[in-house]
Amino acid sequence: MTDYATLEALNARAGTLGEALSILHWDQQAMMPAGGNESRGEQTALLETLIHEIAAGPAMGEAIEAASAQNDLDPWQRANVAESRRRYLRATALPADLVAAKARAESQAFAVWQQARPADDFAAVLPSLRTCFDLARQAGQAIADATGQPLYEAMIEGFEPDLSVAEIDAVFDDYAAFLPDFLDDVLAAQGRRDAPLPLEGPFDVEQQKAVFQDIMGALGFDFAHGRLDTSAHPFCGGTPTDVRMTTRYRDDAFLDAMMGVVHETGHALYEQGLPAQWARQPVGQSRGMVLHESQSLTIEMQVVRSLAFMKFAAPRLAQAFGRSGPAWTAENLSRHAARVERSFIRVEADEVTYPAHVILRYRLEKAMLKGDLDLADLPQAWGDGLEALLGIRPPSDREGCLQDIHWYSGAFGYFPTYSLGAMCAAQVFAAARDQLGDVDARIEAGDFAPLLGWLRTNIHGKASSGSTNEILSDATGSPLRTDAFKAHLRRRYLDG
Amino acid sequence: MTDYATLEALNARAGTLGEALSILHWDQQAMMPAGGNESRGEQTALLETLIHEIAAGPAMGEAIEAASAQNDLDPWQRANVAESRRRYLRATALPADLVAAKARAESQAFAVWQQARPADDFAAVLPSLRTCFDLARQAGQAIADATGQPLYEAMIEGFEPDLSVAEIDAVFDDYAAFLPDFLDDVLAAQGRRDAPLPLEGPFDVEQQKAVFQDIMGALGFDFAHGRLDTSAHPFCGGTPTDVRMTTRYRDDAFLDAMMGVVHETGHALYEQGLPAQWARQPVGQSRGMVLHESQSLTIEMQVVRSLAFMKFAAPRLAQAFGRSGPAWTAENLSRHAARVERSFIRVEADEVTYPAHVILRYRLEKAMLKGDLDLADLPQAWGDGLEALLGIRPPSDREGCLQDIHWYSGAFGYFPTYSLGAMCAAQVFAAARDQLGDVDARIEAGDFAPLLGWLRTNIHGKASSGSTNEILSDATGSPLRTDAFKAHLRRRYLDG
Repeated sequence: MTDYATLEALNARAGTLGEALSILHWDQQAMMPAGGNESRGEQTALLETLIHEIAAGPAMGEAIEAASAQNDLDPWQRANVAESRRRYLRATALPADLVAAKARAESQAFAVWQQARPADDFAAVLPSLRTCFDLARQAGQAIADATGQPLYEAMIEGFEPDLSVAEIDAVFDDYAAFLPDFLDDVLAAQGRRDAPLPLEGPFDVEQQKAVFQDIMGALGFDFAHGRLDTSAHPFCGGTPTDVRMTTRYRDDAFLDAMMGVVHETGHALYEQGLPAQWARQPVGQSRGMVLHESQSLTIEMQVVRSLAFMKFAAPRLAQAFGRSGPAWTAENLSRHAARVERSFIRVEADEVTYPAHVILRYRLEKAMLKGDLDLADLPQAWGDGLEALLGIRPPSDREGCLQDIHWYSGAFGYFPTYSLGAMCAAQVFAAARDQLGDVDARIEAGDFAPLLGWLRTNIHGKASSGSTNEILSDATGSPLRTDAFKAHLRRRYLDG
Repeated sequence: MTDYATLEALNARAGTLGEALSILHWDQQAMMPAGGNESRGEQTALLETLIHEIAAGPAMGEAIEAASAQNDLDPWQRANVAESRRRYLRATALPADLVAAKARAESQAFAVWQQARPADDFAAVLPSLRTCFDLARQAGQAIADATGQPLYEAMIEGFEPDLSVAEIDAVFDDYAAFLPDFLDDVLAAQGRRDAPLPLEGPFDVEQQKAVFQDIMGALGFDFAHGRLDTSAHPFCGGTPTDVRMTTRYRDDAFLDAMMGVVHETGHALYEQGLPAQWARQPVGQSRGMVLHESQSLTIEMQVVRSLAFMKFAAPRLAQAFGRSGPAWTAENLSRHAARVERSFIRVEADEVTYPAHVILRYRLEKAMLKGDLDLADLPQAWGDGLEALLGIRPPSDREGCLQDIHWYSGAFGYFPTYSLGAMCAAQVFAAARDQLGDVDARIEAGDFAPLLGWLRTNIHGKASSGSTNEILSDATGSPLRTDAFKAHLRRRYLDG
């Protein structure tokens, strides 16, 4: 074997174990009886250990060094070596006792948070949150020391590589300045239009599943390489050739579940579109959370919540549920799909106000890491920050700094990717529309193949062969900017 | 760590990987879309390699030697060392190239057999079968050389340890001598009784699943530690705390599916009853295929196909399917469940004639291994052997030596365990009935707890702490004999 081939073999071994782990995680959420929990914990912990032993082992370090010295590699192979090195540096930066302490603290904080959120008791979870935060900072610092990155960027890189605070600041400050007046205009325009007519339930769960699967198939989901099941917390897991999507159903409403399904379908299409010849290699994986979220939001926000899509979907939904009348027109459905309001809960927010929720968390994370904000002052800072961005103040911590799981499970640096993904989706979709010409007419006709083909070529098939901004620049002519997102919002909410 | 603790740690690691593998195998049969096949093959092959690396590694050998020298072990720990040694000897006996050649040959023969069986073309699969057989014999010989066992016993031990050809001969010769006259008597008695009234379909699959799950629950299946799904080839997999059972449905008949479900439920109850404190250790696993089959057949043959059980089940089945009338009485259902006839296909055979099918295969395996039977002469020998045992001769190889997958996937030595399991089930159930007193009345009342409790104590909870005959002797007062089985058959088919 050449040195590079040794590196590929090690990556294949770790990647294969990662695939097994991914299926077991899906099973745990979607299939496993409760009594299997302890054994499953043993299984996943062991697989994680084995993956870490490969990823941070001396053989990996030697293979990376040796492959780096080879001058006969093609660009994808070189990118594969670089991605392997990035992972190796992160994997070896953390001492084992810090990894173990972090896992324990996160598990403990998560358990306390699960009680503290419904009880609206921030004080109860504060000590656990402090521990979680301190250990996340220590881990981030260890990585920063090993890679030479600034602390926060080292932490963000756990979710999205090569993203600078300067870039995020530029994008988020721009949107924060844009939002207040724009939101007033949107709400005024919305007030001048009719409120949407209610969609009366009940909606049979089997009928929902059938029509959702029809829509997934129309969007391009390949059921020979994936399936849709049910779990308490919907997600998209599995492997690129065997994608496991989940959703959850309510029988009194279907639209939120449908939006969840198409959102996860966007993630699934990305995974299914990754290049098969690079399966299980670092360069063959999805680029990061920004591009991943851009793909889910291209489908959900750009495509499905449009009037064009609802013209395709309305008769199918009406037929699936045996309904008719003015509530089941494309126009009424799209009014439901594009309501805007100031609200407290991020996961329920519309696409106009959603970035405010993210910008708030991003600014708070930066302040905490700089030492400018003590964690005990989070509730006050949260209220002040939301008021500055959206003009409202949460009446409780349950609707404020206790609402999200992320910090209480040690995920600092994740939040920015949500809104960067939304902005990226608008930029990607605008480029596809420019290049393809008749995207809206195709969507209305239920022909999603041209759009999917464009995404396959320009996003999915690129995998991790370049940085997010390189892939985005190649696809759209520019790195990430807010222009396309703002133009999209103006068109949908002011001109529509 | 003590030396023994090191051994437990190694076993736990291999056992945990085995559990993950088992869930992935279930998923492949019951859930995985076809397109996941290639990746799944990579995942399971790697896990098998990792398990083998532990099971046959030098650390395992050293831990076994060191633990064997410890004199502070309790009986279960000693049995755990002995079971570890047994596995280690088998795992290290085979050279890697033989293991690989065997796997390739089995996969190839299986593929050819899948075509040859429907085409009734034994000649087409004969060369592949020869290769499979030669490699299985080589592997058996390598193990025999390492363990000092006779060849056929070394091969049988892959499925059931500590079983001697002398024991099997005694039991099978006894039954072969008993069968001809007994079968004539049974068929004559059956001819004097009314034929069963037909159970008219269709039977809704969801209703079938619901009533099967009710029956599983009544029998003691713990749904907090298992589930029932659908697969083309029903099986019982998963892990002791997370048992994955499958079945398949037809909408024109339910009784075969129900028998399949209760059969797998018997396997599942054994797994769910294994001692939790020995999970993932060799001593904590099920003893072997004879006891495993005895548990499935205790439930299917001893309990469910009885009139007492049908008195419990008949009203539930009638209600589930919305039927009534004379076809839905306990008496009619039990007539369906206990029909006897001379037939060609093992998996469709009744419990009276089933052992003849197994004895035939056992005798042919012995002759092939001795060199007394060339594989080219299998069709002729099959016909002669079946005629001697059952008085019928298959009209085709499809109904003869092509019918079973076992030999065409390298499984030589497996067949005897089926009928030894059936005989063991009769002996176990007779002992339970003697010791519990009112088993039939409890079954009729749907109270299976006393029987399950007895099986838990006397079979399931013993795991691999003794040999099959030790466990059986402790439970029933004697090693395996045919008396109880013959008495059971007489009672059900002549006196009933």
